[in-house]
Amino acid sequence: MRKSLGAKTLIYPTPVFVVGTYDKAGKPNVMTASWGGICCSSPPCVAVSIRKAAYSHGNIVERKAFTINIPAEANIREADFFGLVSGKDRDKFTEAGLTPVKSDMVDAPYVKEFPFALECKLLKTVEIGSHTQFIGEVIDIKAEPSMLDANGNLDIEKVMPVIFTPVSRNYYGIGRSVGKAFSIGKNI
Amino acid sequence: MRKSLGAKTLIYPTPVFVVGTYDKAGKPNVMTASWGGICCSSPPCVAVSIRKAAYSHGNIVERKAFTINIPAEANIREADFFGLVSGKDRDKFTEAGLTPVKSDMVDAPYVKEFPFALECKLLKTVEIGSHTQFIGEVIDIKAEPSMLDANGNLDIEKVMPVIFTPVSRNYYGIGRSVGKAFSIGKNI
Repeated sequence: MRKSLGAKTLIYPTPVFVVGTYDKAGKPNVMTASWGGICCSSPPCVAVSIRKAAYSHGNIVERKAFTINIPAEANIREADFFGLVSGKDRDKFTEAGLTPVKSDMVDAPYVKEFPFALECKLLKTVEIGSHTQFIGEVIDIKAEPSMLDANGNLDIEKVMPVIFTPVSRNYYGIGRSVGKAFSIGKNI
Repeated sequence: MRKSLGAKTLIYPTPVFVVGTYDKAGKPNVMTASWGGICCSSPPCVAVSIRKAAYSHGNIVERKAFTINIPAEANIREADFFGLVSGKDRDKFTEAGLTPVKSDMVDAPYVKEFPFALECKLLKTVEIGSHTQFIGEVIDIKAEPSMLDANGNLDIEKVMPVIFTPVSRNYYGIGRSVGKAFSIGKNI
């Protein structure tokens, strides 16, 4: 007999996105957001949901662009910090000792010290309830060369990304490979 | 100097959702989808993106409900299989030897053998490009009691969920806890 847990925002895994934006004056900001994911293959799109009160919300509306930075385990303190304070009255990059780099392709900064970032152009804005969902078209992905495998692809075992667990509010690392997708289910 | 990887659908972690639906005739179906995530806190909502050609697409439009089932590492062969064939001409539950259970709260089945499921009522439909994004309001979460910790919350170390890596197309397990969220960034 299953147990009812009620209506909760709880899935595993939930990502840790660090959203990079510029404000009106050109000050770079970053915020942590875990409500999001890939949402379309063609055009390649990623969705991230943000409360209207967040400083980054206004920045995305204004600049119509953002980056999604994926922190490594080694960056988890900074990523957590980016979700604790507001960029309205703080300079989070400077306080965390991290470096904003202007994206080549979109009007938003990425975090130089994190493994990789998606450069996104705002494609659609969906009002849901407490959150606005920003759908960004991925224009490019920029990665640290040390995060790539021999074929030039991102290697998750080098990136060492982080998982967020809602409700219990913990961060986890990734584990071992457990199978090849579109393959291990063939001979069920 | 960062390396440009081009416009790709690539984030870490990407989830493995198994979407449960009924068709017009009441036949239960399941499909695997990795484009999705939580998208709102209030009301609690989850988004999943599906191609129009998928059998489940029509089911969701018709029934205005779906479940999101989270497979464990132990279920990864079945979850992969659910992404390889179409429910249009196959009975995936029977072929995989798994059991559909009618949700209490919504007009959709969940997978009895998987650790937990979100019961979702269709709230919004967003056309993006190749994919339709279905936003479901989470009406309840139903979990196997053995997946809960002493406080009655889902325990990720019992659930053992799976991560999908786009482009390289592998599945990974979860690793160790690397810190407390909304906490470890306080003294940066």
